[in-house]
Amino acid sequence: MEYDGSGFSGWQRLNKPGEPGRRDEPTVQAALEQALSFVAGEAVEVVCAGRTDAGVHAAAQVVHFDGPARRDPRGWVLGTTSRLPPAICVRWCVPVADDFHARFCARARRYRYSILNRPVRPALQRQYLSWERRPLDADAMHRAAQALVGEHDFSAFRTVHCQAPHARRDLQHIDVSRAGEVVTIEVQANAFLHHMVRNIVGSLLPVGRGERPEGWVGELLTGRDRTAAGPTAPSAGLVFLGPRYPAQWGLPAEVEL
Amino acid sequence: MEYDGSGFSGWQRLNKPGEPGRRDEPTVQAALEQALSFVAGEAVEVVCAGRTDAGVHAAAQVVHFDGPARRDPRGWVLGTTSRLPPAICVRWCVPVADDFHARFCARARRYRYSILNRPVRPALQRQYLSWERRPLDADAMHRAAQALVGEHDFSAFRTVHCQAPHARRDLQHIDVSRAGEVVTIEVQANAFLHHMVRNIVGSLLPVGRGERPEGWVGELLTGRDRTAAGPTAPSAGLVFLGPRYPAQWGLPAEVEL
Repeated sequence: MEYDGSGFSGWQRLNKPGEPGRRDEPTVQAALEQALSFVAGEAVEVVCAGRTDAGVHAAAQVVHFDGPARRDPRGWVLGTTSRLPPAICVRWCVPVADDFHARFCARARRYRYSILNRPVRPALQRQYLSWERRPLDADAMHRAAQALVGEHDFSAFRTVHCQAPHARRDLQHIDVSRAGEVVTIEVQANAFLHHMVRNIVGSLLPVGRGERPEGWVGELLTGRDRTAAGPTAPSAGLVFLGPRYPAQWGLPAEVEL
Repeated sequence: MEYDGSGFSGWQRLNKPGEPGRRDEPTVQAALEQALSFVAGEAVEVVCAGRTDAGVHAAAQVVHFDGPARRDPRGWVLGTTSRLPPAICVRWCVPVADDFHARFCARARRYRYSILNRPVRPALQRQYLSWERRPLDADAMHRAAQALVGEHDFSAFRTVHCQAPHARRDLQHIDVSRAGEVVTIEVQANAFLHHMVRNIVGSLLPVGRGERPEGWVGELLTGRDRTAAGPTAPSAGLVFLGPRYPAQWGLPAEVEL
Protein backbone atom coordinates (compact mmCIF):
# COMPACT_ATOMS: atom_id res chain seq x y z
CA MET A 1 0.00 0.00 0.00
CA GLU A 2 0.91 3.61 -0.43
CA TYR A 3 -0.53 6.37 1.75
CA ASP A 4 -0.23 10.02 2.61
CA GLY A 5 -0.41 10.04 6.39
CA SER A 6 -1.20 13.76 6.70
CA GLY A 7 -4.88 13.32 7.52
CA PHE A 8 -4.62 10.16 9.64
CA SER A 9 -4.03 9.40 13.30
CA GLY A 10 -1.48 6.86 12.16
CA TRP A 11 -1.77 3.28 11.03
CA GLN A 12 -3.35 1.54 13.95
CA ARG A 13 -7.11 1.16 14.28
CA LEU A 14 -8.29 2.60 17.59
CA ASN A 15 -11.45 0.51 17.93
CA LYS A 16 -12.18 -3.14 17.43
CA PRO A 17 -13.72 -3.80 14.01
CA GLY A 18 -17.48 -3.28 14.08
CA GLU A 19 -17.33 -1.68 17.51
CA PRO A 20 -18.99 1.73 17.70
CA GLY A 21 -16.31 4.44 17.53
CA ARG A 22 -14.79 5.28 20.87
CA ARG A 23 -12.46 7.63 19.06
CA ASP A 24 -13.31 9.32 15.80
CA GLU A 25 -9.84 9.93 14.37
CA PRO A 26 -9.39 8.26 11.00
CA THR A 27 -6.72 5.58 10.79
CA VAL A 28 -5.18 3.91 7.75
CA GLN A 29 -5.90 0.43 9.11
CA ALA A 30 -9.60 1.15 9.65
CA ALA A 31 -9.96 2.63 6.15
CA LEU A 32 -8.20 -0.36 4.58
CA GLU A 33 -10.16 -2.96 6.54
CA GLN A 34 -13.43 -1.29 5.60
CA ALA A 35 -12.55 -1.31 1.89
CA LEU A 36 -11.13 -4.85 1.93
CA SER A 37 -14.13 -6.16 3.85
CA PHE A 38 -16.41 -4.76 1.15
CA VAL A 39 -14.46 -6.49 -1.61
CA ALA A 40 -14.15 -9.74 0.38
CA GLY A 41 -17.81 -9.72 1.32
CA GLU A 42 -16.87 -10.45 4.93
CA ALA A 43 -15.03 -8.80 7.82
CA VAL A 44 -11.28 -8.65 7.19
CA GLU A 45 -8.56 -7.82 9.72
CA VAL A 46 -5.09 -6.94 8.48
CA VAL A 47 -1.55 -7.10 9.89
CA CYS A 48 1.06 -4.62 8.62
CA ALA A 49 4.85 -4.74 8.35
CA GLY A 50 5.45 -1.48 10.20
CA ARG A 51 2.92 0.60 12.13
CA THR A 52 3.33 4.27 11.29
CA ASP A 53 2.53 7.23 13.56
CA ALA A 54 0.12 10.08 12.92
CA GLY A 55 1.25 12.12 9.90
CA VAL A 56 3.84 9.58 8.72
CA HIS A 57 3.59 8.44 5.09
CA ALA A 58 4.22 5.07 3.45
CA ALA A 59 5.53 4.29 -0.03
CA ALA A 60 5.32 0.51 0.28
CA GLN A 61 3.55 -0.63 3.43
CA VAL A 62 2.93 -4.38 3.24
CA VAL A 63 -0.09 -6.03 4.88
CA HIS A 64 -1.42 -9.55 4.98
CA PHE A 65 -4.83 -10.95 5.83
CA ASP A 66 -6.45 -14.37 6.01
CA GLY A 67 -9.85 -15.41 4.80
CA PRO A 68 -11.75 -17.65 2.43
CA ALA A 69 -12.56 -14.96 -0.18
CA ARG A 70 -10.95 -15.58 -3.58
CA ARG A 71 -10.48 -12.74 -6.09
CA ASP A 72 -7.81 -12.30 -8.71
CA PRO A 73 -4.99 -9.92 -7.65
CA ARG A 74 -6.22 -7.22 -10.03
CA GLY A 75 -9.67 -7.42 -8.44
CA TRP A 76 -8.28 -6.98 -4.94
CA VAL A 77 -6.07 -4.08 -6.02
CA LEU A 78 -8.56 -2.08 -8.08
CA GLY A 79 -11.67 -3.01 -6.11
CA THR A 80 -10.12 -2.09 -2.77
CA THR A 81 -8.49 1.11 -4.07
CA SER A 82 -11.81 2.29 -5.50
CA ARG A 83 -13.30 2.14 -1.96
CA LEU A 84 -10.35 3.88 -0.27
CA PRO A 85 -10.01 7.64 0.38
CA PRO A 86 -7.72 9.51 -2.09
CA ALA A 87 -4.80 9.47 0.37
CA ILE A 88 -4.56 5.64 0.31
CA CYS A 89 -4.14 3.11 -2.49
CA VAL A 90 -3.25 -0.56 -2.91
CA ARG A 91 -0.31 -0.96 -5.29
CA TRP A 92 -0.14 -4.72 -5.71
CA CYS A 93 -1.42 -7.96 -4.25
CA VAL A 94 0.00 -11.49 -4.33
CA PRO A 95 -1.33 -14.72 -2.78
CA VAL A 96 1.04 -15.99 -0.07
CA ALA A 97 1.53 -19.22 1.86
CA ASP A 98 -0.33 -19.57 5.17
CA ASP A 99 2.83 -19.13 7.21
CA PHE A 100 3.65 -15.71 5.74
CA HIS A 101 3.23 -12.91 8.28
CA ALA A 102 3.71 -9.28 7.19
CA ARG A 103 5.26 -8.29 10.51
CA PHE A 104 7.16 -11.34 11.71
CA CYS A 105 8.63 -12.37 8.34
CA ALA A 106 10.07 -8.93 7.59
CA ARG A 107 13.86 -8.96 8.00
CA ALA A 108 14.32 -5.19 7.61
CA ARG A 109 12.45 -1.90 7.38
CA ARG A 110 13.53 1.21 5.50
CA TYR A 111 12.61 4.82 6.25
CA ARG A 112 13.44 8.14 4.61
CA TYR A 113 13.32 11.51 6.37
CA SER A 114 13.43 14.71 4.28
CA ILE A 115 14.31 18.18 5.58
CA LEU A 116 13.99 21.39 3.57
CA ASN A 117 17.04 23.40 4.62
CA ARG A 118 16.58 27.08 3.76
CA PRO A 119 15.50 30.30 5.48
CA VAL A 120 11.86 30.07 4.31
CA ARG A 121 9.33 27.35 5.15
CA PRO A 122 8.17 25.01 2.36
CA ALA A 123 4.98 25.64 0.34
CA LEU A 124 5.32 23.03 -2.43
CA GLN A 125 5.81 19.51 -1.02
CA ARG A 126 5.15 20.80 2.51
CA GLN A 127 3.18 17.60 3.29
CA TYR A 128 6.40 15.62 2.77
CA LEU A 129 9.08 17.83 4.28
CA SER A 130 10.16 19.05 7.65
CA TRP A 131 12.00 22.36 7.75
CA GLU A 132 15.26 23.63 9.23
CA ARG A 133 16.10 27.28 8.61
CA ARG A 134 19.70 27.16 9.89
CA PRO A 135 22.33 25.72 7.50
CA LEU A 136 22.93 21.99 8.01
CA ASP A 137 26.25 20.25 7.42
CA ALA A 138 24.92 17.01 5.92
CA ASP A 139 28.39 15.45 5.78
CA ALA A 140 28.89 16.00 9.52
CA MET A 141 25.45 14.48 10.16
CA HIS A 142 26.37 11.48 8.03
CA ARG A 143 29.64 10.90 9.89
CA ALA A 144 27.93 11.31 13.27
CA ALA A 145 25.20 8.84 12.31
CA GLN A 146 27.68 6.03 11.56
CA ALA A 147 28.08 5.44 15.32
CA LEU A 148 24.54 3.99 15.24
CA VAL A 149 25.32 1.23 12.72
CA GLY A 150 25.28 -2.27 14.18
CA GLU A 151 23.35 -4.02 16.92
CA HIS A 152 22.84 -1.74 19.91
CA ASP A 153 20.47 -0.86 22.73
CA PHE A 154 18.60 2.14 21.28
CA SER A 155 16.95 3.27 24.55
CA ALA A 156 18.26 6.80 23.98
CA PHE A 157 16.08 7.09 20.86
CA ARG A 158 12.95 5.38 22.15
CA THR A 159 9.82 7.19 23.28
CA VAL A 160 8.61 6.51 26.82
CA HIS A 161 5.41 5.16 25.25
CA CYS A 162 7.27 2.42 23.39
CA GLN A 163 5.85 -0.99 24.26
CA ALA A 164 8.63 -3.18 22.82
CA PRO A 165 9.99 -5.72 25.33
CA HIS A 166 13.59 -4.67 24.75
CA ALA A 167 15.48 -1.90 22.92
CA ARG A 168 18.08 -3.91 21.00
CA ARG A 169 17.89 -3.32 17.26
CA ASP A 170 20.26 -3.98 14.37
CA LEU A 171 20.68 -0.76 12.43
CA GLN A 172 22.04 -1.87 9.06
CA HIS A 173 22.77 1.43 7.40
CA ILE A 174 22.07 5.14 7.73
CA ASP A 175 22.95 7.71 5.08
CA VAL A 176 22.63 11.47 5.24
CA SER A 177 22.93 13.37 1.96
CA ARG A 178 22.05 16.70 0.43
CA ALA A 179 20.43 17.44 -2.96
CA GLY A 180 20.09 21.21 -3.33
CA GLU A 181 18.02 22.56 -0.43
CA VAL A 182 16.86 19.11 0.74
CA VAL A 183 18.76 17.01 3.28
CA THR A 184 17.70 13.37 3.27
CA ILE A 185 18.29 10.69 5.89
CA GLU A 186 17.78 7.08 4.79
CA VAL A 187 17.94 4.37 7.39
CA GLN A 188 17.44 0.62 7.46
CA ALA A 189 17.21 -1.63 10.51
CA ASN A 190 15.83 -5.06 11.28
CA ALA A 191 13.08 -3.22 13.19
CA PHE A 192 12.52 0.16 14.81
CA LEU A 193 11.40 1.29 18.24
CA HIS A 194 8.54 3.76 18.61
CA HIS A 195 9.71 7.23 17.38
CA MET A 196 13.22 5.83 16.79
CA VAL A 197 13.77 7.40 13.34
CA ARG A 198 12.38 10.79 14.39
CA ASN A 199 14.43 10.76 17.59
CA ILE A 200 17.61 9.91 15.67
CA VAL A 201 16.88 12.77 13.25
CA GLY A 202 16.23 15.08 16.20
CA SER A 203 19.69 14.24 17.54
CA LEU A 204 21.44 14.60 14.17
CA LEU A 205 20.08 18.13 13.70
CA PRO A 206 22.16 19.76 16.49
CA VAL A 207 25.23 18.15 14.89
CA GLY A 208 24.23 19.48 11.47
CA ARG A 209 23.78 22.97 12.91
CA GLY A 210 27.22 22.78 14.53
CA GLU A 211 25.81 22.97 18.08
CA ARG A 212 27.10 19.51 19.02
CA PRO A 213 30.25 17.63 18.00
CA GLU A 214 30.00 14.64 15.68
CA GLY A 215 30.81 12.28 18.56
CA TRP A 216 27.69 13.35 20.48
CA VAL A 217 25.37 10.91 18.70
CA GLY A 218 27.55 7.95 19.68
CA GLU A 219 27.65 9.23 23.27
CA LEU A 220 23.85 9.45 23.35
CA LEU A 221 23.63 5.86 22.14
CA THR A 222 26.01 4.63 24.86
CA GLY A 223 24.28 6.72 27.55
CA ARG A 224 20.86 5.12 26.83
CA ASP A 225 19.20 8.22 28.29
CA ARG A 226 16.25 9.49 26.24
CA THR A 227 16.22 12.80 28.13
CA ALA A 228 19.77 13.59 26.95
CA ALA A 229 18.97 13.20 23.24
CA GLY A 230 17.43 15.73 20.85
CA PRO A 231 13.67 16.35 20.49
CA THR A 232 11.47 14.17 18.27
CA ALA A 233 11.57 15.51 14.70
CA PRO A 234 8.17 16.34 13.10
CA SER A 235 6.21 13.55 11.42
CA ALA A 236 5.72 15.26 8.04
CA GLY A 237 9.25 14.51 6.80
CA LEU A 238 9.00 10.77 7.39
CA VAL A 239 8.15 8.12 4.79
CA PHE A 240 8.12 4.38 5.48
CA LEU A 241 9.80 3.15 2.29
CA GLY A 242 8.86 -0.41 3.08
CA PRO A 243 9.91 -3.73 4.60
CA ARG A 244 12.18 -6.41 3.16
CA TYR A 245 11.37 -10.13 3.13
CA PRO A 246 13.41 -13.21 2.20
CA ALA A 247 13.06 -14.08 -1.51
CA GLN A 248 11.32 -17.39 -0.64
CA TRP A 249 7.98 -15.57 -0.24
CA GLY A 250 7.86 -14.59 -3.89
CA LEU A 251 6.99 -10.94 -3.28
CA PRO A 252 7.77 -8.10 -5.75
CA ALA A 253 11.45 -7.18 -6.00
CA GLU A 254 11.03 -3.84 -4.20
CA VAL A 255 10.36 -5.62 -0.89
CA GLU A 256 12.75 -8.52 -1.44
CA LEU A 257 15.87 -8.84 0.64
CA MET B 1 7.56 32.75 -4.86
CA GLU B 2 6.68 29.14 -4.46
CA TYR B 3 3.10 27.89 -4.20
CA ASP B 4 0.95 24.80 -4.15
CA GLY B 5 -1.91 25.73 -6.46
CA SER B 6 -4.23 22.92 -5.23
CA GLY B 7 -6.49 25.17 -3.17
CA PHE B 8 -6.47 28.25 -5.42
CA SER B 9 -8.51 29.46 -8.38
CA GLY B 10 -5.22 30.23 -10.08
CA TRP B 11 -2.89 33.20 -9.93
CA GLN B 12 -5.05 36.07 -11.03
CA ARG B 13 -7.01 38.18 -8.57
CA LEU B 14 -10.70 38.21 -9.49
CA ASN B 15 -11.58 41.54 -7.85
CA LYS B 16 -9.93 44.92 -7.80
CA PRO B 17 -7.92 45.42 -4.61
CA GLY B 18 -10.10 46.69 -1.78
CA GLU B 19 -13.28 46.03 -3.76
CA PRO B 20 -15.81 43.89 -1.89
CA GLY B 21 -15.56 40.30 -3.16
CA ARG B 22 -17.61 39.63 -6.23
CA ARG B 23 -16.18 36.14 -6.28
CA ASP B 24 -14.98 34.35 -3.19
CA GLU B 25 -12.47 31.91 -4.67
CA PRO B 26 -9.00 32.37 -3.20
CA THR B 27 -6.27 33.41 -5.65
CA VAL B 28 -2.51 33.48 -5.18
CA GLN B 29 -2.28 37.11 -6.29
CA ALA B 30 -4.89 38.30 -3.78
CA ALA B 31 -3.17 36.41 -0.93
CA LEU B 32 0.23 37.83 -1.87
CA GLU B 33 -1.02 41.39 -2.26
CA GLN B 34 -2.74 41.24 1.10
CA ALA B 35 0.43 40.02 2.84
CA LEU B 36 2.74 42.44 0.99
CA SER B 37 0.41 45.38 1.67
CA PHE B 38 0.57 44.61 5.38
CA VAL B 39 4.39 44.59 5.36
CA ALA B 40 4.57 47.68 3.13
CA GLY B 41 2.01 49.55 5.20
CA GLU B 42 0.19 50.55 2.02
CA ALA B 43 -1.74 48.94 -0.82
CA VAL B 44 0.55 46.95 -3.12
CA GLU B 45 -0.31 45.57 -6.56
CA VAL B 46 1.95 42.94 -8.12
CA VAL B 47 2.79 41.78 -11.65
CA CYS B 48 3.90 38.17 -12.20
CA ALA B 49 6.07 36.49 -14.82
CA GLY B 50 3.52 33.83 -15.73
CA ARG B 51 -0.11 33.61 -14.67
CA THR B 52 -0.97 30.08 -13.62
CA ASP B 53 -4.39 28.40 -13.83
CA ALA B 54 -6.44 26.89 -11.02
CA GLY B 55 -4.60 23.94 -9.45
CA VAL B 56 -1.26 24.68 -11.16
CA HIS B 57 1.80 24.98 -8.91
CA ALA B 58 4.85 27.24 -9.05
CA ALA B 59 8.42 26.53 -7.94
CA ALA B 60 9.81 29.97 -8.82
CA GLN B 61 7.14 32.44 -9.80
CA VAL B 62 8.67 35.92 -10.05
CA VAL B 63 6.70 39.08 -9.27
CA HIS B 64 7.57 42.74 -9.13
CA PHE B 65 5.85 45.69 -7.50
CA ASP B 66 6.46 49.42 -7.18
CA GLY B 67 6.09 51.60 -4.13
CA PRO B 68 7.89 53.87 -1.71
CA ALA B 69 8.16 51.33 1.15
CA ARG B 70 11.76 50.38 2.01
CA ARG B 71 12.53 47.15 3.92
CA ASP B 72 15.60 44.97 3.76
CA PRO B 73 15.15 41.87 1.51
CA ARG B 74 15.04 39.58 4.56
CA GLY B 75 12.24 41.69 6.02
CA TRP B 76 10.17 41.44 2.84
CA VAL B 77 10.75 37.68 2.56
CA LEU B 78 10.09 36.64 6.16
CA GLY B 79 7.49 39.30 6.97
CA THR B 80 5.42 38.55 3.89
CA THR B 81 5.74 34.77 4.23
CA SER B 82 4.57 34.94 7.85
CA ARG B 83 1.29 36.53 6.61
CA LEU B 84 0.75 34.06 3.76
CA PRO B 85 -1.26 30.81 3.93
CA PRO B 86 0.84 27.60 4.25
CA ALA B 87 0.53 26.86 0.51
CA ILE B 88 2.45 30.04 -0.47
CA CYS B 89 5.86 31.41 0.46
CA VAL B 90 8.30 34.07 -0.73
CA ARG B 91 11.71 32.55 -1.44
CA TRP B 92 13.82 35.62 -2.14
CA CYS B 93 13.58 39.31 -2.84
CA VAL B 94 15.97 41.69 -4.60
CA PRO B 95 15.64 45.41 -5.34
CA VAL B 96 15.44 46.04 -9.10
CA ALA B 97 15.74 49.02 -11.42
CA ASP B 98 12.55 50.93 -12.25
CA ASP B 99 12.45 49.54 -15.79
CA PHE B 100 12.40 45.89 -14.69
CA HIS B 101 9.04 44.26 -15.40
CA ALA B 102 8.41 40.67 -14.25
CA ARG B 103 6.32 39.84 -17.31
CA PHE B 104 7.80 41.87 -20.15
CA CYS B 105 11.47 41.35 -19.27
CA ALA B 106 11.18 37.54 -19.08
CA ARG B 107 12.80 35.93 -22.15
CA ALA B 108 11.60 32.40 -21.40
CA ARG B 109 9.32 30.36 -19.14
CA ARG B 110 9.82 26.75 -18.05
CA TYR B 111 7.15 24.24 -17.05
CA ARG B 112 7.26 20.63 -15.88
CA TYR B 113 4.37 18.17 -16.18
CA SER B 114 4.49 14.89 -14.21
CA ILE B 115 2.40 11.80 -14.90
CA LEU B 116 2.24 8.73 -12.70
CA ASN B 117 2.09 5.83 -15.15
CA ARG B 118 0.82 2.69 -13.42
CA PRO B 119 -2.45 0.78 -13.03
CA VAL B 120 -3.33 2.38 -9.65
CA ARG B 121 -3.98 6.08 -8.96
CA PRO B 122 -1.45 7.99 -6.81
CA ALA B 123 -1.87 8.46 -3.05
CA LEU B 124 1.53 9.94 -2.09
CA GLN B 125 2.34 13.06 -4.14
CA ARG B 126 -1.16 13.04 -5.64
CA GLN B 127 -1.27 16.86 -5.41
CA TYR B 128 1.63 16.99 -7.88
CA LEU B 129 0.88 14.20 -10.33
CA SER B 130 -1.61 13.40 -13.00
CA TRP B 131 -2.27 9.73 -13.69
CA GLU B 132 -2.28 7.49 -16.74
CA ARG B 133 -3.08 3.82 -16.17
CA ARG B 134 -2.15 2.57 -19.66
CA PRO B 135 1.59 2.09 -20.34
CA LEU B 136 3.23 5.14 -21.95
CA ASP B 137 6.13 4.99 -24.40
CA ALA B 138 8.03 8.05 -23.18
CA ASP B 139 10.61 7.78 -25.98
CA ALA B 140 7.87 7.92 -28.63
CA MET B 141 6.35 10.94 -26.86
CA HIS B 142 9.75 12.63 -26.83
CA ARG B 143 10.30 12.06 -30.55
CA ALA B 144 6.77 13.24 -31.37
CA ALA B 145 7.24 16.40 -29.31
CA GLN B 146 10.32 17.52 -31.24
CA ALA B 147 8.03 18.69 -34.09
CA LEU B 148 6.98 21.53 -31.76
CA VAL B 149 10.46 22.98 -31.32
CA GLY B 150 10.98 26.35 -33.00
CA GLU B 151 8.80 29.36 -33.74
CA HIS B 152 5.31 28.28 -34.79
CA ASP B 153 1.66 29.24 -34.67
CA PHE B 154 0.40 27.17 -31.71
CA SER B 155 -3.34 27.69 -32.35
CA ALA B 156 -3.88 23.92 -32.16
CA PHE B 157 -2.83 23.96 -28.48
CA ARG B 158 -4.57 27.16 -27.40
CA THR B 159 -7.80 27.27 -25.43
CA VAL B 160 -10.70 29.19 -26.95
CA HIS B 161 -10.56 31.46 -23.89
CA CYS B 162 -7.00 32.56 -24.68
CA GLN B 163 -6.80 36.35 -24.96
CA ALA B 164 -3.34 36.64 -26.54
CA PRO B 165 -3.34 38.78 -29.72
CA HIS B 166 -1.57 36.10 -31.76
CA ALA B 167 -0.53 32.45 -31.36
CA ARG B 168 3.11 32.57 -32.49
CA ARG B 169 5.48 31.31 -29.81
CA ASP B 170 9.09 30.16 -29.82
CA LEU B 171 9.25 26.74 -28.17
CA GLN B 172 12.92 26.34 -27.25
CA HIS B 173 12.98 22.79 -25.99
CA ILE B 174 10.70 19.98 -24.88
CA ASP B 175 11.91 16.77 -23.26
CA VAL B 176 9.91 13.71 -22.28
CA SER B 177 11.60 11.21 -19.98
CA ARG B 178 10.75 8.40 -17.60
CA ALA B 179 12.07 7.74 -14.07
CA GLY B 180 10.45 4.57 -12.75
CA GLU B 181 6.67 5.00 -12.79
CA VAL B 182 6.80 8.76 -13.46
CA VAL B 183 6.86 10.27 -16.96
CA THR B 184 8.00 13.89 -16.97
CA ILE B 185 7.60 16.52 -19.69
CA GLU B 186 9.80 19.61 -19.41
CA VAL B 187 9.21 22.44 -21.81
CA GLN B 188 10.64 25.92 -22.30
CA ALA B 189 9.31 28.65 -24.59
CA ASN B 190 9.62 32.41 -24.82
CA ALA B 191 5.99 32.50 -23.64
CA PHE B 192 2.97 30.20 -23.52
CA LEU B 193 -0.63 30.51 -24.65
CA HIS B 194 -3.47 29.77 -22.23
CA HIS B 195 -3.55 25.97 -21.55
CA MET B 196 -0.72 25.44 -24.05
CA VAL B 197 1.36 23.07 -21.89
CA ARG B 198 -1.65 21.02 -20.79
CA ASN B 199 -2.95 20.81 -24.37
CA ILE B 200 0.46 19.69 -25.64
CA VAL B 201 0.55 17.00 -22.92
CA GLY B 202 -2.99 15.97 -23.82
CA SER B 203 -1.83 15.42 -27.41
CA LEU B 204 1.35 13.56 -26.46
CA LEU B 205 -0.61 11.03 -24.37
CA PRO B 206 -2.34 9.29 -27.34
CA VAL B 207 1.10 8.93 -28.93
CA GLY B 208 2.50 7.48 -25.69
CA ARG B 209 -0.38 4.98 -25.52
CA GLY B 210 0.25 3.95 -29.13
CA GLU B 211 -3.14 5.22 -30.34
CA ARG B 212 -1.60 7.84 -32.64
CA PRO B 213 1.60 7.79 -34.72
CA GLU B 214 4.54 9.97 -33.71
CA GLY B 215 3.92 12.28 -36.68
CA TRP B 216 0.46 13.20 -35.37
CA VAL B 217 1.69 15.97 -33.06
CA GLY B 218 3.44 17.74 -35.96
CA GLU B 219 0.27 17.39 -38.06
CA LEU B 220 -1.81 18.95 -35.27
CA LEU B 221 0.60 21.89 -35.12
CA THR B 222 0.39 22.46 -38.86
CA GLY B 223 -3.40 22.05 -38.88
CA ARG B 224 -3.88 24.83 -36.26
CA ASP B 225 -7.19 23.24 -35.28
CA ARG B 226 -7.78 23.02 -31.53
CA THR B 227 -10.68 20.61 -31.99
CA ALA B 228 -8.39 18.06 -33.68
CA ALA B 229 -5.89 17.92 -30.78
CA GLY B 230 -6.09 15.90 -27.56
CA PRO B 231 -8.00 17.00 -24.44
CA THR B 232 -6.50 19.39 -21.88
CA ALA B 233 -4.45 17.39 -19.35
CA PRO B 234 -5.37 17.86 -15.65
CA SER B 235 -3.85 20.79 -13.75
CA ALA B 236 -2.40 18.78 -10.85
CA GLY B 237 0.63 17.55 -12.79
CA LEU B 238 1.77 21.01 -13.83
CA VAL B 239 4.46 23.12 -12.11
CA PHE B 240 5.64 26.49 -13.37
CA LEU B 241 9.38 26.07 -12.81
CA GLY B 242 9.97 29.76 -13.42
CA PRO B 243 10.89 32.48 -15.90
CA ARG B 244 14.33 33.42 -17.23
CA TYR B 245 15.65 36.99 -17.44
CA PRO B 246 18.76 38.50 -19.02
CA ALA B 247 21.69 38.59 -16.56
CA GLN B 248 21.70 42.42 -16.57
CA TRP B 249 18.88 42.49 -13.98
CA GLY B 250 21.04 40.87 -11.33
CA LEU B 251 18.48 38.25 -10.28
CA PRO B 252 19.39 34.91 -8.64
CA ALA B 253 21.00 32.36 -10.97
CA GLU B 254 17.95 30.10 -11.06
CA VAL B 255 16.01 32.67 -13.11
CA GLU B 256 18.95 33.93 -15.15
CA LEU B 257 19.15 33.28 -18.85
